[in-house]
Amino acid sequence: MAPHLVQPGWRFWRQAACTLGASVQHRTWAGTPRIPRPGSLWGATTTSPRICRSGSSTSARAPEVTLTRERYPVRRLPFSVVSREDLEAFERVVPGRVITDPEVLEASNVDWLRTVRGSSAVLLRPRTSEEVAHILRYCHERNLAVNPQGGNTGMVGGSVPVFDEIILSTALMNQVISFHDLSGTLVCQAGCVLEELSRHVEERGFIMPLDLGAKGSCHIGGNVATNAGGLRFLRYGSLHGTVLGLEVVLADGTVLNCLSAPRKDNTGYDLKQLFIGSEGTLGVITAVSILCPPKPRAVNVAFLGCPGFPEVLQTFSTCKGLLGEILSAYEFMDAECMWLVRHHLCLASPVQESPFYVLIETSGSRAGHDAEKLNDFLEQVLRSGLVTDGTVATDHMKVKALWALRERISEALSRDGYVYKYDLSLPTERLYDLVTDLRVRLGPQAKHVVGYGHLGDGNLHLNVTSEAFSPSVLDALEPYVYEWTAGQRGSVSAEHGLGFRKRGVISYSKPPEALRLMRQLKALLDPKGILNPYKTLPAQA
Amino acid sequence: MAPHLVQPGWRFWRQAACTLGASVQHRTWAGTPRIPRPGSLWGATTTSPRICRSGSSTSARAPEVTLTRERYPVRRLPFSVVSREDLEAFERVVPGRVITDPEVLEASNVDWLRTVRGSSAVLLRPRTSEEVAHILRYCHERNLAVNPQGGNTGMVGGSVPVFDEIILSTALMNQVISFHDLSGTLVCQAGCVLEELSRHVEERGFIMPLDLGAKGSCHIGGNVATNAGGLRFLRYGSLHGTVLGLEVVLADGTVLNCLSAPRKDNTGYDLKQLFIGSEGTLGVITAVSILCPPKPRAVNVAFLGCPGFPEVLQTFSTCKGLLGEILSAYEFMDAECMWLVRHHLCLASPVQESPFYVLIETSGSRAGHDAEKLNDFLEQVLRSGLVTDGTVATDHMKVKALWALRERISEALSRDGYVYKYDLSLPTERLYDLVTDLRVRLGPQAKHVVGYGHLGDGNLHLNVTSEAFSPSVLDALEPYVYEWTAGQRGSVSAEHGLGFRKRGVISYSKPPEALRLMRQLKALLDPKGILNPYKTLPAQA
Repeated sequence: MAPHLVQPGWRFWRQAACTLGASVQHRTWAGTPRIPRPGSLWGATTTSPRICRSGSSTSARAPEVTLTRERYPVRRLPFSVVSREDLEAFERVVPGRVITDPEVLEASNVDWLRTVRGSSAVLLRPRTSEEVAHILRYCHERNLAVNPQGGNTGMVGGSVPVFDEIILSTALMNQVISFHDLSGTLVCQAGCVLEELSRHVEERGFIMPLDLGAKGSCHIGGNVATNAGGLRFLRYGSLHGTVLGLEVVLADGTVLNCLSAPRKDNTGYDLKQLFIGSEGTLGVITAVSILCPPKPRAVNVAFLGCPGFPEVLQTFSTCKGLLGEILSAYEFMDAECMWLVRHHLCLASPVQESPFYVLIETSGSRAGHDAEKLNDFLEQVLRSGLVTDGTVATDHMKVKALWALRERISEALSRDGYVYKYDLSLPTERLYDLVTDLRVRLGPQAKHVVGYGHLGDGNLHLNVTSEAFSPSVLDALEPYVYEWTAGQRGSVSAEHGLGFRKRGVISYSKPPEALRLMRQLKALLDPKGILNPYKTLPAQA
Repeated sequence: MAPHLVQPGWRFWRQAACTLGASVQHRTWAGTPRIPRPGSLWGATTTSPRICRSGSSTSARAPEVTLTRERYPVRRLPFSVVSREDLEAFERVVPGRVITDPEVLEASNVDWLRTVRGSSAVLLRPRTSEEVAHILRYCHERNLAVNPQGGNTGMVGGSVPVFDEIILSTALMNQVISFHDLSGTLVCQAGCVLEELSRHVEERGFIMPLDLGAKGSCHIGGNVATNAGGLRFLRYGSLHGTVLGLEVVLADGTVLNCLSAPRKDNTGYDLKQLFIGSEGTLGVITAVSILCPPKPRAVNVAFLGCPGFPEVLQTFSTCKGLLGEILSAYEFMDAECMWLVRHHLCLASPVQESPFYVLIETSGSRAGHDAEKLNDFLEQVLRSGLVTDGTVATDHMKVKALWALRERISEALSRDGYVYKYDLSLPTERLYDLVTDLRVRLGPQAKHVVGYGHLGDGNLHLNVTSEAFSPSVLDALEPYVYEWTAGQRGSVSAEHGLGFRKRGVISYSKPPEALRLMRQLKALLDPKGILNPYKTLPAQA
């Protein structure tokens, strides 16, 4: 295949992006207050005049999700049942914010992927950590189970009740407490929406250290509780490094205030780390202190076509060398992903058809320098044949348009049929082997077997679709995928967590000694097990 | 004061650094197998022909350090005493590596600052985690206390025994297990010396994410156990973010293998975080997996004189804006620090006398771009009067020479008399107030009250010297310094930890609920309290 751009040049590449026009949408969810549900609002923001072959975006209300307790083999633990007296007690703690209307509760009982559904009869909306402390103290005494809930955007059913757990929402705990202009330290309540925080700090010359497709809905408390990864992980690292302090309410109502944390603090054990990624099972995060990096002055996105996976890897090595400190994302997707976003969402590829596509983002402090680095990199990868076609965008809207191709894959998949989702960490050089392997293994049973994800972090999103749920497809996938991953000493949940749906597979990535210690920690911090039960740790025999 | 360089230019600045010549030494400790003790090897590597006024570098063997149990009010806990049978049992586990020679033991019983001294009669040198597991299982059964020891370079007496604890050295656990060229993941045993690891990964195009003055002696296991900060913290962040996995032997001999960790892993609680910064009190780290950043192609160091502390702060803001992603260190020192390094170590200032000095390091992938950014920054700060004089180095040896001015302050202080050392996190804008405040408070009681440190991280090293130890100086300093810090919601130990000497001050930075949870974690992981007793957590009433 002859290179599309025979004489790659910065301006020329930039122009190419401009031709994308209306066929590329904005990032999913960006700017919307809630995540659209499949079958309802999906695709409502499409501005393209093209007609897609998939008609699901205009379909009627989705069918009801089966109750978790009916679909999965799980037994209710002996917690108390919420009584009228309990509701009255809650009403005294959070007056007017005890929700029992089944219509309102529905959205909080079902996860956004519509795979699990609880039957909670009460949702509480505290505004302060003191209110959370009151609620938990009460629930602890009464042995009532509690399901902490942020934006309910999780991927593993961790954010909704399994049975009748009380839903404790952080939605009204949405105040920014402080922002420090010199250090970039943001302190805020747990219910602040990530996108609103982004706006807040961007007005002050900073950015949030994490970014997710779900940013229009997800809460920072939920991000921390699930140790969310996302699109800036490659550059700014894990929340274990960027979260400076937390305020957490423990199961018995004790307020653990480790919020006023400076950048460096070695006074005793770093307790906040326990709660990062513990999915609300060890305590309820009520406030977060987080370090925000300075806002880059220049952002470029290159969208490239590669002839094979080895070239995707070599392009990554080359780009680490030539882009160095300005590299902020290295994402990849295969040709089937591109087919899906075109077919279901009318998003056209901005480059020639290729077996693989790579999205590279740079963020830097000096546009001219960044452009020079990027151009040198592009010249090299084009000249060497690692890349066969490409386009670059610097304009904010064009950048978002290119990102949409990568970010909306998940949406396109959900329109393709029943989706089997895996979020794996694997050695980068073997990242794609599992995808090709599964295509052979599943044969015509699967509609699509696709691979995409955060290649720069060794994180593969492996997705398989079939017309409808099929036990035989599932049997072909599991435990095969987990065993394959364990064989590579990878992680069976890179960034999505375990929640309810993946808690049974923890042992593929963690030894028995680790699981035992996790259980001991749970027993220490939540002896009655009232916090987000049936999540993270597997059921005990 | 007129700027020294009326027409600042890149090449000109570089030349200025070359004039430093022989009067600036290499980094302290770099390349030496052990840290020199004050009064013995100090200054032995000086190449300067100048005669220093201080004669301590040639003094005879230092006087013996008082035993900790005699100097501090601490009571031995009811552990067993090592018997002949115990020694025989150890000999079976680590044959030929059970050290009881008092001459050899002396170095391991005394901390390098010579402030604390234990009386251990046995030092064990395991080579594998299995041997560590055997030892701990035995000690746990026999109720024998154990003091894990790495390079013994800690600042708070955490690495030496208080009474007769068995010293468990990681010195022979010094093998690199693997290095992954694409991801930069290094896996190694805990006893690897930081400088040797640096060499290992630098040969492969990477650097360690941390760097310390003590790198020639300190062990990576000790770095992780103390959550070491150091010189690259500003750029690469905390070990909580860069450590990917750990192998830890628990108090009862259980091997907790969380070593084969990919970049992203959300399968359950992140157990390794518990051990980072726990100073060997919760488990013995036996192997480390750590993420190494790519080696920068260009490193520049600028050494600048500032007319006041407000200018130091404004220079920091300016430099964050103009240097952006290539900024890798922002250190400051006051005029008294410069006096001390000149007076005691014959290090001459490369710039005109100033109230404050700033050391700025950039690390980037493209020398030309970095030089341009740095030059623009320097022009701006000189023109605006934020900086009155400066010099820049790019050559490796000159870079080291400039760093020596900052890194050897601690050594110069130790030659000035008795040193009262504080390592505080404070809001950056108030960082220096405490120093000026203490100068007034102490008056002529103190020889010197100096402030220096990692300003970019809000970390002040506050040091006070007097001719000899003086209870009245100590009374004037404590608890005043801790109360002042707590009043600013700072940390009373930013990076040095608590160890033995600071464990009593934890409550200035942590609330009672946090301390209670720390004690519960200690009791859970080490129910008999055999691991590094008398450290980190305050004695219980």
